[in-house]
Amino acid sequence: MSFDAAVHAKAIRLDTLALQMTGAAGSGHPTTATSLGHITTVLMYHAMRWVPEEPALNTADRLVLSEGHAVPIVYAAFIDLGAMVGNPGEYRPADMSDIDGFRATDSPLDGHPNPREGFAFFDAATGSLGQGLSVAAGLGAAARGDGIDQRIFCIVGDGESREGQVWEAVDSIVEMDLRNVLPIFNCNGYGQAGAVSSQQSPDRIAAKLQAAGMTVLTIDGHNPTAIRDAVEQFTNGADGPIAIVANTVKGWGIPSMQGGGWHGKPATGEKLEAACQELAATGVALTTSLAGSELAIYPPTTAQRTVIQASDYPSFREAMAAIDQTTVLQVGRLATRKAFGIALRIMGKCDNSIWAVDADVRNSTFLDGFADDPATKDRFVDCKIGEQNMISVAAGISAAGKNVFTASFGKFLTRGYDQIEMAMNSGANMKIVGSHCGISLAADGPSQMALPDVAWFRSLGSTRDHNGNPGCYVLQPADAWAAYGLTTAMGDYEGMCYMRVFRPEVEFLYDENTVFDLGGMEVLTEGRDLLIVSAGYMLHECNKSLDALDKMGIDASLLDLYSLPFDEDRLLDLANANGGNVLVVEDNYGGGLFSAVAEACCKAGDAFTIEPMHVTRIPKSSLNEASVLEQCGMHHEAITARAASMLGIAAHVH
Amino acid sequence: MSFDAAVHAKAIRLDTLALQMTGAAGSGHPTTATSLGHITTVLMYHAMRWVPEEPALNTADRLVLSEGHAVPIVYAAFIDLGAMVGNPGEYRPADMSDIDGFRATDSPLDGHPNPREGFAFFDAATGSLGQGLSVAAGLGAAARGDGIDQRIFCIVGDGESREGQVWEAVDSIVEMDLRNVLPIFNCNGYGQAGAVSSQQSPDRIAAKLQAAGMTVLTIDGHNPTAIRDAVEQFTNGADGPIAIVANTVKGWGIPSMQGGGWHGKPATGEKLEAACQELAATGVALTTSLAGSELAIYPPTTAQRTVIQASDYPSFREAMAAIDQTTVLQVGRLATRKAFGIALRIMGKCDNSIWAVDADVRNSTFLDGFADDPATKDRFVDCKIGEQNMISVAAGISAAGKNVFTASFGKFLTRGYDQIEMAMNSGANMKIVGSHCGISLAADGPSQMALPDVAWFRSLGSTRDHNGNPGCYVLQPADAWAAYGLTTAMGDYEGMCYMRVFRPEVEFLYDENTVFDLGGMEVLTEGRDLLIVSAGYMLHECNKSLDALDKMGIDASLLDLYSLPFDEDRLLDLANANGGNVLVVEDNYGGGLFSAVAEACCKAGDAFTIEPMHVTRIPKSSLNEASVLEQCGMHHEAITARAASMLGIAAHVH
Repeated sequence: MSFDAAVHAKAIRLDTLALQMTGAAGSGHPTTATSLGHITTVLMYHAMRWVPEEPALNTADRLVLSEGHAVPIVYAAFIDLGAMVGNPGEYRPADMSDIDGFRATDSPLDGHPNPREGFAFFDAATGSLGQGLSVAAGLGAAARGDGIDQRIFCIVGDGESREGQVWEAVDSIVEMDLRNVLPIFNCNGYGQAGAVSSQQSPDRIAAKLQAAGMTVLTIDGHNPTAIRDAVEQFTNGADGPIAIVANTVKGWGIPSMQGGGWHGKPATGEKLEAACQELAATGVALTTSLAGSELAIYPPTTAQRTVIQASDYPSFREAMAAIDQTTVLQVGRLATRKAFGIALRIMGKCDNSIWAVDADVRNSTFLDGFADDPATKDRFVDCKIGEQNMISVAAGISAAGKNVFTASFGKFLTRGYDQIEMAMNSGANMKIVGSHCGISLAADGPSQMALPDVAWFRSLGSTRDHNGNPGCYVLQPADAWAAYGLTTAMGDYEGMCYMRVFRPEVEFLYDENTVFDLGGMEVLTEGRDLLIVSAGYMLHECNKSLDALDKMGIDASLLDLYSLPFDEDRLLDLANANGGNVLVVEDNYGGGLFSAVAEACCKAGDAFTIEPMHVTRIPKSSLNEASVLEQCGMHHEAITARAASMLGIAAHVH
Repeated sequence: MSFDAAVHAKAIRLDTLALQMTGAAGSGHPTTATSLGHITTVLMYHAMRWVPEEPALNTADRLVLSEGHAVPIVYAAFIDLGAMVGNPGEYRPADMSDIDGFRATDSPLDGHPNPREGFAFFDAATGSLGQGLSVAAGLGAAARGDGIDQRIFCIVGDGESREGQVWEAVDSIVEMDLRNVLPIFNCNGYGQAGAVSSQQSPDRIAAKLQAAGMTVLTIDGHNPTAIRDAVEQFTNGADGPIAIVANTVKGWGIPSMQGGGWHGKPATGEKLEAACQELAATGVALTTSLAGSELAIYPPTTAQRTVIQASDYPSFREAMAAIDQTTVLQVGRLATRKAFGIALRIMGKCDNSIWAVDADVRNSTFLDGFADDPATKDRFVDCKIGEQNMISVAAGISAAGKNVFTASFGKFLTRGYDQIEMAMNSGANMKIVGSHCGISLAADGPSQMALPDVAWFRSLGSTRDHNGNPGCYVLQPADAWAAYGLTTAMGDYEGMCYMRVFRPEVEFLYDENTVFDLGGMEVLTEGRDLLIVSAGYMLHECNKSLDALDKMGIDASLLDLYSLPFDEDRLLDLANANGGNVLVVEDNYGGGLFSAVAEACCKAGDAFTIEPMHVTRIPKSSLNEASVLEQCGMHHEAITARAASMLGIAAHVH
């Protein structure tokens, strides 16, 4: 049998399985799936070097299905091949019983690609569109860094390619000259609500790819030889990045399910039977025999990724000595973002699993030490001003087994929140650092200040990841010692963290005697009348109010609640030891520390009086930190007044 | 004096003022500003039809400064012209004293464009990059809708054009054939951390614009005649969208401040004097006389925008009669997203200030009624699959004085969170509707479920907008009556709201006797042992547990806390009336209702026992609502068991 006939036969087999599983579930996207029957067949049964018995093998070629709703076509291949599903360690071969399981609670065949729910073949959870090509770029960069012969195939929808992130990814692939990543645009002409815009026609997509510097191969996505030949131009090695634009038919092979109105609609009952018959008839018209196969799957050419060297990270003092900055320790003043940059550079030198991903602000986040050091610079990726892509590239690097840090202004990270959530769903080992957070940024104004960030990341932290840990730790170091300590703690942890650093230089509050842990907290001052809870920059402002409170006869405690979540019992003990009076001070909008403290106390059923001081106006720019604190009513005199007022003592209200 | 000489003279004057104000503040971006001296001069002193005495005039041509950090050059023009600053009603002319005020707390010259802090010339707060062209597209669409002769000029940075949103906006401008919007790409060659990527070279940007279907004019951005001629090709009316790619010099006129390393660095003291002298010398070399001006500013050609017709919105019953669906009222079952769609369509028919903006999911959010109705379809914009652009286009439409609704899956709205916050900062009158929220989506899995959304929007709601209202109301209707009522309540409100609707069809809980207000809540069942607080889909599940609790002898109350924020005193009264026992049930990650209830109770200082039930695992797909509720431990039997357990009563734990 010819290659064409073999691919047609297999594609029709996969298309049929996709129809059946979506029909069984009563939901899903069979017409998108069948638009990819031939491309999936050529990739998974011919071009990709992988091992169906070891779908998670990290030297195998990878497939990122950016248009995640097409996933039944990949599940169909797994069922056809008897490839392994289930979480690593609990593998079993997929079989026809999985048809009926699709989308069910106990099935590894999730509604959309979901590597941590039993389908380790995928590196990234997809389904929220436009993210896959960035993940593929991250996988490609990591493979090149490891020096392995691995190819990353990425299927992107035409409607999906309206997402700007796709073009950020294209720019990064061209800029990094990643020749091991092949984007395949599936142009089936229909989005959810109707025809794809003329701005996403195959011609426009091809023209845009060419304008960005890619070589474009436009093919018939249902012609087996054409698909194979185009993929071979990529696998044979070209002199620059290549993309395929494939003209396909949504609902290929099933005339009654083509055109608009068939997005996300399965055929069931008699319609399903009729659709399967249409597919079979399409097959008969294409080839005399649909039985047998000339297709063969080959394993990867590389046995192992480069060995990861890791050792214990040096102490802050050792790190400062290593970069000739011990005088800073004597001065006792350093910005938390600088301490983060120093930590990452030093950690990267002794642990080559650490990568760093930036978006044109490395001189603000102080990733520049890592970017410029000869020992680490090959593990630094600058995604330029495209934060969505930055996060998903980092997710891809993590999926390659790396310990990835990514940093930008906390405000600009908001651009990547959807990508961050998808990375959490993917089980990414990703440490996110937001700089210039809170109001202490002052002069640049609210367009650069992260303010609802604590609430959002804390919400992720309220759920459990697939390892049973908080979905995300929120860390707020108050000084350089804390920032260094928490950066190394993040390096030792596998999972997701968000560390919030700020712009100003601040005095040291700690020294080498304090150990900083995820989930930890630190009592800075022990009193008995009132517990002041704060973190980050505001801890310094609270510290300033302690003397004034003391003069009023108020013996306040000051707690550095630098981690969310935290040990709630310990907080309750401290609150009780301070008469149940708690004042929570934070330079962000609500939903952060105050919420966390209130929740902990309410669960206990004791009577506490807990009052918040957080940012309750949209800030505007002020020339310096003192001015912006006054503007927002958070100057230390205001903290003093509020504390006194809680205890019924009149004070000068600033 | 020639036009060229006049523009050079004025540009050098503005450049000098920009140098001075950034020098006075000790921060800001003078070199970006001087790269735009000539373009700003040609626009603000020649091409734009506007009135310096009435900067907010909504028929005047508009300038959207997408690269907001360049703002000193616009402030300089205001100071030069004595144009009005301050909030409307409190205008005063800008003058040389504003040089020293730049970025100060009490100055209208904020660090970045900030229309609600005294600079009404701008429509949108910018500074978080990549959003301005979408805002311009929204302004352009609204101007065309109103039939007025208004032009929107938008300046975009070259480094900034890495942001994918810029290309989403370009696609929308071409797709809508908006000939009243002129994007000007300022290619000064430097980003923050170094040279702009070759992917954002003037040639690449021009090629990408052409590939997207725009006519591109590449010019020397410091050649007055070239700028004027290019702008005139736009103002004379072309046969399609035009863009200008301007080659400029960062630090133009000041050789000592050019090249890398000068981003965001002001010159102060002697360096400032030297820089001003360099600028003056540049001017002398260009033109013999820098005095006088041949430039003239003309007012808009249109006196007024079309009159807005508005009337009271009909009731849900009247609306259902109008669209022949009264039988649904008898059946008593309808999805909240459908009721939203019906409401918006009917509201749009009697209020032509209402616009709707979608991103290819109108058949899921039920915006399709609005999109298809001949009375409203001209006020419907489909941004296709590009949610960042969708939000900023909506912000632009709002800035044109419209009452704009925008809807997508709640999950996909995450893509636009930064844009939503910037819209809040801009004072947008924007109603955001997230559909398919929470776990009740079931079969599609976590890539389509909004889960940390309540926490994020609640955080915005914890601050005050410029009118003194919550930055954002979070609304969770539980049935169609509530969804209809809250949609009309949003229509009557000026500010920002997020309404969270869900996929399943649900029984009615209400009828026409209930009025739904922003800030409101509704007691569904009045008991005395336990207050169950919920909202949206979960209210139905809680409702199911009441009978079982009653059989155990537990007389529970059920509160529909459909609005955040809410009347905290009323909640406290209800909690106290139920023995201080509160169970909060919500189908999202933490940081939502439970946090809000805990905060309210903790401030009161009374003893409450408040327990949460929210989503504490990353959900996977399940075939139906009951299965996903079981998977997440939130089935009504689990609610019953938890409620019983709180009161010390053993129950069958599901």
